[in-house]
This record gives sequence, structure tokens and C-alpha cells, in this order.
Amino acid sequence: MGRDLTALFDPVSVAVVGASDDPAKYGHAIASQAVRADHRRPVHLVNRRGGTVLGRTVAPSIRAIGAPVDLAVVSVPAAGFEAAVDEALACGARAIVAITAGFAETGAAGRERQRVVAERVRAAGAVMVGPNCLGVADNTTDLFLASDTFTPGGIALLSQSGNLALELQLRFAPHGLGFSRFVSLGNQADVTLVDLLADCARHEGTRAIAVYAEDFADGRAFAEAAAVAGKPVVLLTAGRGDASARSAQSHTGALTTSADVVTAACRDAGVELVATPRELTVVLAALAGERRARGRGVAVLTDGGGHGVIAADAVEAAGLTVPELTPDTQDSLREVLWEQSALGNPVDLAGMGEQDPASYTGTVTALLEAEETDAVLMTGYFGGYADAGGGLGGGAALARGEQEAARAIVARHQESAKPLVVQSMYPGSPSCRTLTAGGIPVFGATEDAARALAALARPGATTPASGVTPLPRAATPLERTGYLETRRALEAAGIPFPAAREIHDEDELRAAASEISGPYVLKALHLLHKSDAGGVALGLAGPDELLAAYRDMHARLGAPSYSVEAMADLSDGIELIVGVNRDPRFGPVAMVGLGGILAEVLRDVAFALAPVPADHALHLLRRLRTAPLLDGVRGRPAVDIAAAAEAIERITAFAAAHPEIAELEVNPLLVQPAGVLALDSRAVLV
Amino acid sequence: MGRDLTALFDPVSVAVVGASDDPAKYGHAIASQAVRADHRRPVHLVNRRGGTVLGRTVAPSIRAIGAPVDLAVVSVPAAGFEAAVDEALACGARAIVAITAGFAETGAAGRERQRVVAERVRAAGAVMVGPNCLGVADNTTDLFLASDTFTPGGIALLSQSGNLALELQLRFAPHGLGFSRFVSLGNQADVTLVDLLADCARHEGTRAIAVYAEDFADGRAFAEAAAVAGKPVVLLTAGRGDASARSAQSHTGALTTSADVVTAACRDAGVELVATPRELTVVLAALAGERRARGRGVAVLTDGGGHGVIAADAVEAAGLTVPELTPDTQDSLREVLWEQSALGNPVDLAGMGEQDPASYTGTVTALLEAEETDAVLMTGYFGGYADAGGGLGGGAALARGEQEAARAIVARHQESAKPLVVQSMYPGSPSCRTLTAGGIPVFGATEDAARALAALARPGATTPASGVTPLPRAATPLERTGYLETRRALEAAGIPFPAAREIHDEDELRAAASEISGPYVLKALHLLHKSDAGGVALGLAGPDELLAAYRDMHARLGAPSYSVEAMADLSDGIELIVGVNRDPRFGPVAMVGLGGILAEVLRDVAFALAPVPADHALHLLRRLRTAPLLDGVRGRPAVDIAAAAEAIERITAFAAAHPEIAELEVNPLLVQPAGVLALDSRAVLV
Repeated sequence: MGRDLTALFDPVSVAVVGASDDPAKYGHAIASQAVRADHRRPVHLVNRRGGTVLGRTVAPSIRAIGAPVDLAVVSVPAAGFEAAVDEALACGARAIVAITAGFAETGAAGRERQRVVAERVRAAGAVMVGPNCLGVADNTTDLFLASDTFTPGGIALLSQSGNLALELQLRFAPHGLGFSRFVSLGNQADVTLVDLLADCARHEGTRAIAVYAEDFADGRAFAEAAAVAGKPVVLLTAGRGDASARSAQSHTGALTTSADVVTAACRDAGVELVATPRELTVVLAALAGERRARGRGVAVLTDGGGHGVIAADAVEAAGLTVPELTPDTQDSLREVLWEQSALGNPVDLAGMGEQDPASYTGTVTALLEAEETDAVLMTGYFGGYADAGGGLGGGAALARGEQEAARAIVARHQESAKPLVVQSMYPGSPSCRTLTAGGIPVFGATEDAARALAALARPGATTPASGVTPLPRAATPLERTGYLETRRALEAAGIPFPAAREIHDEDELRAAASEISGPYVLKALHLLHKSDAGGVALGLAGPDELLAAYRDMHARLGAPSYSVEAMADLSDGIELIVGVNRDPRFGPVAMVGLGGILAEVLRDVAFALAPVPADHALHLLRRLRTAPLLDGVRGRPAVDIAAAAEAIERITAFAAAHPEIAELEVNPLLVQPAGVLALDSRAVLV
Repeated sequence: MGRDLTALFDPVSVAVVGASDDPAKYGHAIASQAVRADHRRPVHLVNRRGGTVLGRTVAPSIRAIGAPVDLAVVSVPAAGFEAAVDEALACGARAIVAITAGFAETGAAGRERQRVVAERVRAAGAVMVGPNCLGVADNTTDLFLASDTFTPGGIALLSQSGNLALELQLRFAPHGLGFSRFVSLGNQADVTLVDLLADCARHEGTRAIAVYAEDFADGRAFAEAAAVAGKPVVLLTAGRGDASARSAQSHTGALTTSADVVTAACRDAGVELVATPRELTVVLAALAGERRARGRGVAVLTDGGGHGVIAADAVEAAGLTVPELTPDTQDSLREVLWEQSALGNPVDLAGMGEQDPASYTGTVTALLEAEETDAVLMTGYFGGYADAGGGLGGGAALARGEQEAARAIVARHQESAKPLVVQSMYPGSPSCRTLTAGGIPVFGATEDAARALAALARPGATTPASGVTPLPRAATPLERTGYLETRRALEAAGIPFPAAREIHDEDELRAAASEISGPYVLKALHLLHKSDAGGVALGLAGPDELLAAYRDMHARLGAPSYSVEAMADLSDGIELIVGVNRDPRFGPVAMVGLGGILAEVLRDVAFALAPVPADHALHLLRRLRTAPLLDGVRGRPAVDIAAAAEAIERITAFAAAHPEIAELEVNPLLVQPAGVLALDSRAVLV
């Protein structure tokens, strides 16, 4: 259900503590915004110096207001922060918006200070955003508690950066996008990104949720909440690179997570991950609408050859396809277009649009109706005929014709379920504004249109691609994770290993050799890196070779015990690595990769939140660049991918049920034409 | 030297044949433009119907003008095209701009028709652009023979698409970019892209050359001309994807070349390859200036944490680095900034810019002076303080301060040799316009700023990275390319193979076995696919095994002859593939890749124009994702990369000297810890 944030987004009354008449002070900006909505609810200004602010008498303290305060914005110097919060709580405040800075972002002492305050807030049954935040706004309840006004719309923005919110505000406008809510996350001492995400998921006025976060707090919970949000969640995050990771740390004291893990979590949760404010805007412009593409086939239509082929390249580069059109589709195009038009895909009007703008409508309609297309991209000059500034123009008649075409295209689009995306040289033109107003995303840049189409075609754009599997209940913790303990635990979890016997002397070795048929493997136990130390001997043909190897190894290493194992047949198998590491933010994270030298050099691995169900494990394996090897190449037999996926599910579920394990690795996991066999494994306790 | 295009770009007089008063006719648009410059040279309008056009009396024929015509624009129906060209030539025209369409783009007949016209033009010592082109413009000579006006500037645009030229016109404006020349390439029946590129390279008024081409005509010559242009050449091309290749073919009847080959040719020639009009504009905005980055280290400075880390990620994603700042640099920053500013890289003013805009100047200066940085990126809010529309604004004083900072930054930038690139939320603001005017590229989008920096840091942005090695004189053609002939030819070219003897019977086999020491390889000759047919036997320990293998193979295949060879020691070697294919546009193209199954699955190969000098071959090998294997991993010895590069030079030079060879492949080329050995090779004649 999540926390009740009603007092935060729709308080009965508001007090701005630290309101000021000094334009340089943030308390001034907030106060000026807050009073804009005093028709909706009482807004009290508080400043210990008293006097007037914005021409209103201010109360010297919250108590002095003499009326209940539901939400208190605290924008006072750090020294007076705790006192202000306590007073607000004492006066019945159920929500605190803490602007005051100087806490976790300044180091451990500050982190402790904000922890204590947050505890007092929760003890009082209240909620607190911040500290070190820029405020909160909710256009659906006329709540303006940030320094800026945000154009109303359907996007909830949860952001750790104020300037980014401003840039998004500027970028949203041309796309007709606006904000339902804005929350500056600050240090998330009490109310977290996850709380806010869950609340915005329930919020009727919010159609899509945009997040800029450097610190995910509980990343696992974020992924789980996003997976069930039921509306698009788009995440702008930094920290892919070395420098941004360095900086994010110093900036918010964030514990950063590897980009691989964030990317995997987003894929699992169906979150669209973007890298820049521009990309965020493009994806939101696409996903703000209801419709999605059923598949990846895009029909491209242009009025000039150049734009068509460049757009087709961009669309394919974005991971989509530009299929050839069926004879049926080409026939219906022939009815609309003239002889010199190209009826392939891309379709090229070849000048006809200029003669008869209705040909745009006819072509778009035919392509929206075509069986083989899942979405349509119109690219090029459209918009220029009626463009006031910049465009060639083409006389009043042509301008009128283009305007009519725009209206007709909006109508045809509404009759279709498929997405139409437009790239125009004149995105601000009257005709393009008509398209935008009609719910058709319009972009000036080809690559933006392609990115939008990719977002629309993504299975996980609205609902999770694979979902986030909840963590299993913790099993009885392992006490020791020596080679044999780990191996036994994994065997108990259903992972097959070759037959093995622990031996301490030559008699036990002979006994083992009689129970297990060769060839043999001999491993020295209780060594840190047995293979490096020469503590592993492979392919020992028979008992004699086994004994010789034992004597040599024991002379060199004198290990307390050894493992005698049956040597698996490697000939037709492929070796995988399956590992699970515990991330501070996202919990157990699975890594699957191909084994061997080359794969190591290529770092050809795929990540997912653990546990990984078998069907999802199949997708992970398929994502490997080296995946074709699994199907057999150059006459090699295909290996048992289903068994591999099953094993991945068991290994990752085991690790997820053992929070005491920091790292678990099965390497190699030998995948054979029939079944799998774990040849080695290691676990490290937290 | 290239062709003399003086009459094309600076004619003594101009005639527009097919001039019209009908706004729907192209002859109207061209005529209206042409007459704008009749102060510079006589402009005659011609139309068989006579009468007046644009209020001027038109001549019924070129002859009827009664004055010499230096350049004739021919915009008449296809039926009258040849007659008009002949008349123009007869009247002394030295240049024809052929607008008329309906030639190569309509098929073979049209292609032949334009070939014949082009021949007559050349025979008359004249030049012709087109047919099927949109015209020519030269702002440096007031020549306006296209339907649009182009803002004057330093960019020469050679384009196969009219609408793209219009889009570029719109995109250039905010960056202060304009055009020196515009040429619509059309079908390149006579004057080709290469002729125009060479002429623009010589053209004083041109600082950078932008090309949009779907058909490269002689791609090899294009690469050679670009490599010696001495100014930036930026190529926007389509055809990477399947659909655009399909379409480009139908659109201009272009012979498309694989994207790998175009990419390789551009890299060799130092041409910046871009995928969209927006990317083209960004790269030109960066390269239009003189300065370049000496290395890849970028200092990022922001006024808000979010923008800094996002920009740092974008910069690293673009292949650059964001190095940590030295203590010295941090000290000099400390003098400018306040305590809460972050002195890492990215540098975060953390609100100081708002208090004192001069801190922007101080920080930029310190970073331009820092030893460890090759370029500086300023990103975020700068521009907003003095922004009229959209920006928060910050009062008159702050606005003035920002304006002063902008001027000071321009001054500091001029004193430095390093590039400064700016991303601003307010790229159109007065302060940003000051930066742009001062020669500092300003972008609204972070990814654009990063792309610009990548272009500035590319070795080869202005001068070729590796250059295009001219084709060697053709050697005596091979008549046969059987296994042994090809092998001998390559041995003669200095490629070592294992010892081998051709044998026809058991006696010769025994003789061979006595001359060569085992283990042996036996290959059946004169078979199409010897290995598939089981015509190769490896690792034959001694003469007996060799004989046995021969008898078995001969019984199965009954080949006319066989090759007995010494078996190479594969243990510590790495197998490469070296191939050379002849591209219809770019001539011999070398492909270098790692051998083996995995490499085949990964398609881990690199391309370059052949011949490939050894030093360039080294770079090719280094570009392979699997390159680390060459240095030895997991205790394997490093292999002789220098010898491999040497062999690549010899193999590619050999193929380049044999135009009769369509495909040559040495596979595998075994690279050993010392030296290389070619284990097999094949050649296919054209």
C-alpha cells in the first residue's frame, strides 16, 4: 500500500518557515509561490524576526500562527532546523518539506543528524521530504512549494537536481508536456524515491513518472515499485562513467551502483532508462500517449528521398525494422500517389505532397492500415508549406491544404491503434502544432523520432519486460563456505555436480577411485586459490595417474584434504559462468556469461536481479553476443539451453535465499547437449 | 589538379533556359534567384514561347540572346534537353547546370542518354552538373542558381537531396554557420562529387566541406581527395540499414556499398562520418573553428550537480575521458570558488555562479590552463540569468554580470589554444549568443556538446588519421588461381607458408615425405571446397600415416594431385583471417579479423582501404574487440603483432596490384610468438 502522503500533496494548511522578503533568499522564492494558492488553503508565513513578507504580516513562530498547520516548509539556517521541525510537529504538522541543507551531503555527522530528525518525524506519524531539497509542487491540488512554476500536465517529476527540472520544463513545452507533480528528493532522510514513486503510481492526475536520481536509496524496492506502477516510469540517471560516479558520491554522498546493475534492474522492472534530459523528453513525448506498437516494424514515409533513407537508417539503428511493403499495401499507395513516387519502404512522395497535400493523409492512412507495419514515421518537409517563419511557404492554397492534411491525419490516427511519429524540419509550424495537439509526437531531429519509436515498441515500455521476482524467505544461513560445503548446498538446491569423495590419505584415495570411474580430477581443499596454487589436476586417466598426482600435489601443498572427482566429458559442452553478487542498493544481482578465455576478454555477460526465473534466464542467455554458440556452429551439437536456464534459476534462487553470501559463483557450469554439470563453485560470506 | 570549374562557380554570363512565370515551375524559382545577381554578371532568361518572365523580355532561344553565354541552366522538359544543351554549347557555354530530370534515375535507357550528353559536353571542353539536379549557388561570387537562398558562411554543401539542404540551412543559423557554396549533385553524369570536393578544397571562401551522398560514384577517388583536402570534410550518408540501401538504389540508381566499407574509407581519409542532419550540424559547429584538442581529456564544469554528472557520462560515452584534476588545478580553483563548490571533475560551482557570475570565468580559465585537460565543457544554467524568455532571470545586476562573464570567457578562450564547448539550457540567450559570436560552440543538448568534443579530439578531424595509400601499378595478372598458384604468388610476395610439395602418386608422396619432416598435412587439389569435401588431413605423425591418409583420400576423391605439407605448431599461435575484396566504388578493401569459431560468431573484423601499410595494420589489429588475446592472456605468450602487420601490408599490397582478383583470403594466418605462417589461402578472379 505504501505511505500516506496526502498531507504532503494536498495539505489542509501550509506554513512557510523562514519566509523572507530578501530576493536572494530561497525563503523568498518559496513564499512567493506558496501564497499564489491561498485561495485553496490557508498559507501562513513565519519568520522569527516577525514584520511583513510580501506585504503580509508574518508570525514570529509556528505556534504564534494560532491555527493548525498541516504542512510546514522549513527553510531556516541549519542551526535552527531541529527546533523548527519539532515546533511544526508539536503544532500538528503531518508533513514537513525540509529545504534546509547541511546534512548527509556534508558527511557522516550530518547524516546522523538527519537520521535523528527523521525518526522524530516518523514517531509523530508525520512525513518529511528532504532535507537539502528544493521543494514540492502539485498542480492537481494547487500546491506551489518550490521556487518555480511548473506547467500543468500529466508528468510527475521526482528529481535530485533543480536545474534539470528547469531544463525539462523548457524541453517539455513544445511537446505539450507538463507536470502533475514536482518533488525535489533531497537527501531522502524520511520520504524516499520509492515512497513517492508508489504514491505517484496511485495518483490519478499522473500519466507517467519521470525520475532523476543519483542515489537510489533502496534500489530493489524502486525496481519492485516501478514494475507494478502500471504507468510509464522513465529514469534519467548518471554514474555510468568513472567521473560521474566520483562526483555523485561527493555531491549527495550517494552509494553508487555499477551501471550494469542499474540497467539490468530497469530492464527487469520495465523502466525506460535514459541518459540525457533531451532523451527523457523524447521518451516521455512518446509514452505520454496510450498507444504502443505491437511489434518492431516501422513504415517510413517522406517527401524527399534524403530524409527517408536517413530516417530508415536511424530507425534500424534504434533496433527497429523497416520491412518491405506487401503488394497489397503498394497497390493502395498507388491509388494515392503518382507515378514517380517510390512505393518501397521508405515511401517517397517525390514531390507529390507539394502538388496535393492530401497525398500525405492518404499515404499515412494506407501505412497505418498495412498489415506489415506496427508504427509509422512521417519525416521531412511537412509543416513547411504553412510555416510562417523559415519555411519556403507555397502560397495560401498550399498552406490551407497542408493544414487540412494535418487535421485529417489526426483523424485517421485516432481511428488507428498504431503509433504515428513525425519528424519535421518545421516542428513549430501551425500544421505540426495541429499534429502535436492531436496526440501525435512531433520532433525536429530524426534521431529523436527514432528513439521515440523504440520506446513505443519496447515490450517493457508500460509493463515489466520480465518483472522483478520478490526475494525468497531467508533460508538457514550457511556457516562455512568451503569448497565442499558450498558444493553440497548447491547440490541440495538441485544443481548436479560430478561424483566426488573427500579424502585425507592414500587409502581413502584408493577407496574413492574404486567407487568412482575415471578419468579423474583431483582438487586440493582449504586453499584460497586452488587452481593458481596448482591444486587442481585434470584428466587423470586411471587410479595410478590419480595416485601419482596426489603424491605430487600433497608433497607440494600438504593440504589437509582433497577431493577426488569424476572428470566430465567436455568435448561437446559449452562452459558458462553463473554468479550472484550482493549490491548495496539492489540486493542479489545475477551475472550470466560464457566461459573461457575469449569470453573473459570480451566481458560478454548479462545481468538481472536475482532470483532469475528460468524463462527470464533464457532471455539473458540469448542476449549474450556469443549466444549463437549455444545453438551449435560449424557442425557442433546444440547444447541444452533449457537445462542451463533451469540451473540459473536454482543457483540465483539459492543465493537470494542466503543474504549471508556476498558472492556466489558457479564456474564453469558445463552445458551439454543433454543436461548441465557444475564443475566448480565458490561462495564468499558477507 | 582536378577539373577547372571556374565557369560553373563564377561564370561571365548566365542563361536560364526554361525560365517561367508560373510559380509551380522550377524554372520560375531559379529565374527569380538568378536575376538577384544581375549586377554581378549578365543574366539572360530563355523560353521558347518568348514573352516576358519576371517582367523581363525573354529570348526564344539561347542563340537569340545575341550575346555570349558562359553558363546555361537547363530546366526544360526531358524531350528538349539534348537540343538545349547542344545549343548552349554551340553558343560557347563552358558550364551547364542540368535541372531536367528523367535520366539515370529512371533506368538503363536514361543512364545511356545522359552518358551521351555528358560525352558531348566534355568534347566541347565544358562541364555539366546534373542532370536531375536542383542547381548551384556560390555566395562568394553572388551566383544564385538554386530555388533557395543560402545564408553566406564558410561551409560548402555538396548534396544529393534538396530538402536536406533546407534542413541544414535551418539548423546552421543558431550556430552562426552559413554556406560558401551549394551544389545539388544530381546524377553526376559529368561533374562528380570528387571534382566538386577537389574544387572546394582549393576554394578560399570554403572552410569546411559538408557532403550528403547516396551514390559515391568513384568512392576511392572521393576518399583520396578528402584525405588531401586540408580542411574538414564531413559526410552524411545513408545506406547503413537494409531499407535505406533498398531505397537509395531506386532513388538514384546508386550502386550502394556496405556500411563497413564506407566507414573504413572515411576513417582512412579523415572524413567525419555522421548519420543525421543534426549530427552534421553539431560536427560542423565544432570543426568550423581552427582549434583542435591535443588529446581526449575533458574538464567538465557545471553550476548544478545534475548537469555535471550527466555531461561527464555523455563525454565518456562519446569516447573521451574526464580525468581527475591535479592538486595544482584544484588549488587554483579554490581561489575562485567557495567552500561548497566541488573541485573534482566535473567541477560544480554549487550556486556560486548565481552569487558571482565572474566565478564562471575564473573556473573556465583555470580549467583551460590545467595541464591535464585537452578541452573544457561548460554545462548547465549559464545564459539563464540574462535570458529574456524562459529563464528565471536574476535581476538586472545578475544579467549584467553574466554578460560580462560571457565576454570575459570569450577573451580567455582566445588566449588559450584549447577548445571550449558549452551546453546551456538557454542556448539562444544573449550571453550564449556572445559566446557563439566569439567562436565558442554552444549547444542546447548535452549529447550534442559531447559529440562536438569527440569531433574536436579525433585525430583525423582535419588531417587523415592514416591516409589513403594510392593503388600500386598493376602487376602481371595471374592467369590461374588454383591453390598452388595462389600460394606461390603470395610466397613470391613475401608471405611465408609451410614447406609443401605437389604430388601425383605414391612415389612422389614418399619423395616428398623424405624432403619434409613430419607431422604432415595432406590436401587434395583442384577441388572447389577441399576441407568440406574431406580433402584435408591434419596432424599426420609420420610417412606411414601420410601414406594411409593419401590412399583413403585418393580412393574417396580421386583428385588429380595433392599437396604434402609440413604441419605447423599451432600450440602458442593465434589464427587471423586476412582478406581483400574488390568494392565497385572503393576498389580493394582489406578485412582483418581473428580466426576461429567464436570470432566468426562475433564477426570481430576491421576494414581498411587496401593496400594497408604495416603501421595502419597495427591499428586495425588493435581495433579488434579480441585484440587483448594478441598480447597473451592467462599465461599464454604474446604473439608477433609486428610480423602480422607486416604480412597484412604484403597481402593487401599484393591484392591491390592484382585488379583481376575479386577476392583474396589468407585464412588462417597463424601468428606465432615469433613470426607468422600462412596455412591456407584462396583467390577468386573477377
